[in-house]
Amino acid sequence: MNLTDPADLAAGVLARKRRAIARAITRIENDLAGADDLVDALYPNTGRAWRLGVTGPPGAGKSTLTDRLIGHWREAGQTVGVVAVDPSSPFTGGALLGDRVRLSERLGDDGVFYRSLAARGAGGGLSEATEAACDVLDAAGFDVVIVETVGVGQGELDVAEAADTVAVVLVPESGDAIQAMKAGLMEIADVFCVNKADHPDANALVGALRSALRLRTPREEDAWTPPVVQTVATESGGIEALVGALEQHRAWLHKGGRWEARREARLRRRVRRLVQADWQRRFWTPERQKALDEAIAALGEERAPHDLALRILGGAG
Amino acid sequence: MNLTDPADLAAGVLARKRRAIARAITRIENDLAGADDLVDALYPNTGRAWRLGVTGPPGAGKSTLTDRLIGHWREAGQTVGVVAVDPSSPFTGGALLGDRVRLSERLGDDGVFYRSLAARGAGGGLSEATEAACDVLDAAGFDVVIVETVGVGQGELDVAEAADTVAVVLVPESGDAIQAMKAGLMEIADVFCVNKADHPDANALVGALRSALRLRTPREEDAWTPPVVQTVATESGGIEALVGALEQHRAWLHKGGRWEARREARLRRRVRRLVQADWQRRFWTPERQKALDEAIAALGEERAPHDLALRILGGAG
Repeated sequence: MNLTDPADLAAGVLARKRRAIARAITRIENDLAGADDLVDALYPNTGRAWRLGVTGPPGAGKSTLTDRLIGHWREAGQTVGVVAVDPSSPFTGGALLGDRVRLSERLGDDGVFYRSLAARGAGGGLSEATEAACDVLDAAGFDVVIVETVGVGQGELDVAEAADTVAVVLVPESGDAIQAMKAGLMEIADVFCVNKADHPDANALVGALRSALRLRTPREEDAWTPPVVQTVATESGGIEALVGALEQHRAWLHKGGRWEARREARLRRRVRRLVQADWQRRFWTPERQKALDEAIAALGEERAPHDLALRILGGAG
Repeated sequence: MNLTDPADLAAGVLARKRRAIARAITRIENDLAGADDLVDALYPNTGRAWRLGVTGPPGAGKSTLTDRLIGHWREAGQTVGVVAVDPSSPFTGGALLGDRVRLSERLGDDGVFYRSLAARGAGGGLSEATEAACDVLDAAGFDVVIVETVGVGQGELDVAEAADTVAVVLVPESGDAIQAMKAGLMEIADVFCVNKADHPDANALVGALRSALRLRTPREEDAWTPPVVQTVATESGGIEALVGALEQHRAWLHKGGRWEARREARLRRRVRRLVQADWQRRFWTPERQKALDEAIAALGEERAPHDLALRILGGAG
């Protein structure tokens, strides 16, 4: 098997060869030659995995919780792929692995594949790299693909866009429902998980979340209302309840064509993003970049951003 | 004065009329007619204000700290404009003001202008709206323009791009230096502020940040090394030290043409973003959107994202 050839690499992924999966994601992450063909070759083989987003503020215990979920589904005979989306740069990238100590316990398990994703190079940015990495794991046949955000940054939105079901993890000590609202996490949550539920303020947070959810404008008749579950991830407490809530959402998705509709909406957003990225690559030739620099320099203090943009774009014909 | 006319509105902003400033930012935020001309008219009058970014995880005390900084500069006879960047949606927008209780103390002070920014409508997104709102306050003559992120989300990057000097606020209880690295905050910080420095773990966080900073690859000879200062914002402790560190960075920027170079780099990034936004608006005609929907439907299971993007873009001529 020649792993530098996209078709061979795709075949390796479909056969769930770990080396092929790792290489495929690396190729996507770094936007290497053939990455687009590889993604296109795998895409028709996707759509079977359940894509689960796990997000929330730093320090909420997302990694530990993800590990507990992996443990649960592994015991139930399901295979699990994990994409940890890390919006930080190569400078910090190396420091993160040491943080995932628990993960090493599973390194010998073929039913789990873990991969962190920094994706500075990917055309279309981290969002595209995240979706494409999920495609790889989906095509490789993992039953559950967990997309976990590492820290803050654009990651929350990427996870929400890439996932079928989004779990937002909050902890009593890191703030309250107001903080979650500020962070825009209320909109993307399908399930709220109040972790460290043994904390004295946990009930207040649960109550505040439920109140905030009641304040939302009611949408369709059969709309999903995000349940609020409590966990103590370090002691595996509440994991069954969390899994139950997540699986209820999954079942809801599979009714009335929602699953396929979401998948199509995701593809539509994605193609728009790719069109944008492709256009940008074509448009910013060295000549146009030079023209922009010269225009900025020539104008001195009489610069005007929108007028500059129109001049550059107008010249595109 | 006719505040619906961009030229009149610009004149009102330059005369520092509060109603004109408020209207100008609203127009930008909602991407209303004339917003582009308004921004272009104001831009040549910008470049005097010091743009200071204040960011960090939710619950770090950014609002309180911002208020202390405003207090410091007001006492020193400086005027201060504040743009609070809120990446959350209209659904949550209304809930945030109640959180800014302290601000009400300053509502009678003409030397302070506070404005939060949700900016769903702005062409070029929240980044463009943030920069343009800073332009308005800069052109209006505020000496210091503080850009503060509310919660998490894309806000951190917007702040880093819009500011001359970025203060990253961390607290011992919400995690450690690893969390800051995860969040990509190490790269954007010009000054670290460890707030709630009376917490027992504060010294450990300060030490960890300093170690992490030492690990960075040394860049140019005269590169800036972010200082780490400690504050207790609720008791105004350490504010002088923080101000000192921030002003040192400002002085450093004003040496060797760095200030002007940063301003030009910012304009370059911004024009590229505007070109992108303008192109996107022109490209996605109802016909092209329909063509995309039809292509997705027609392909059934044989969809391929990159191929779809190429087909759509290829048709753009």
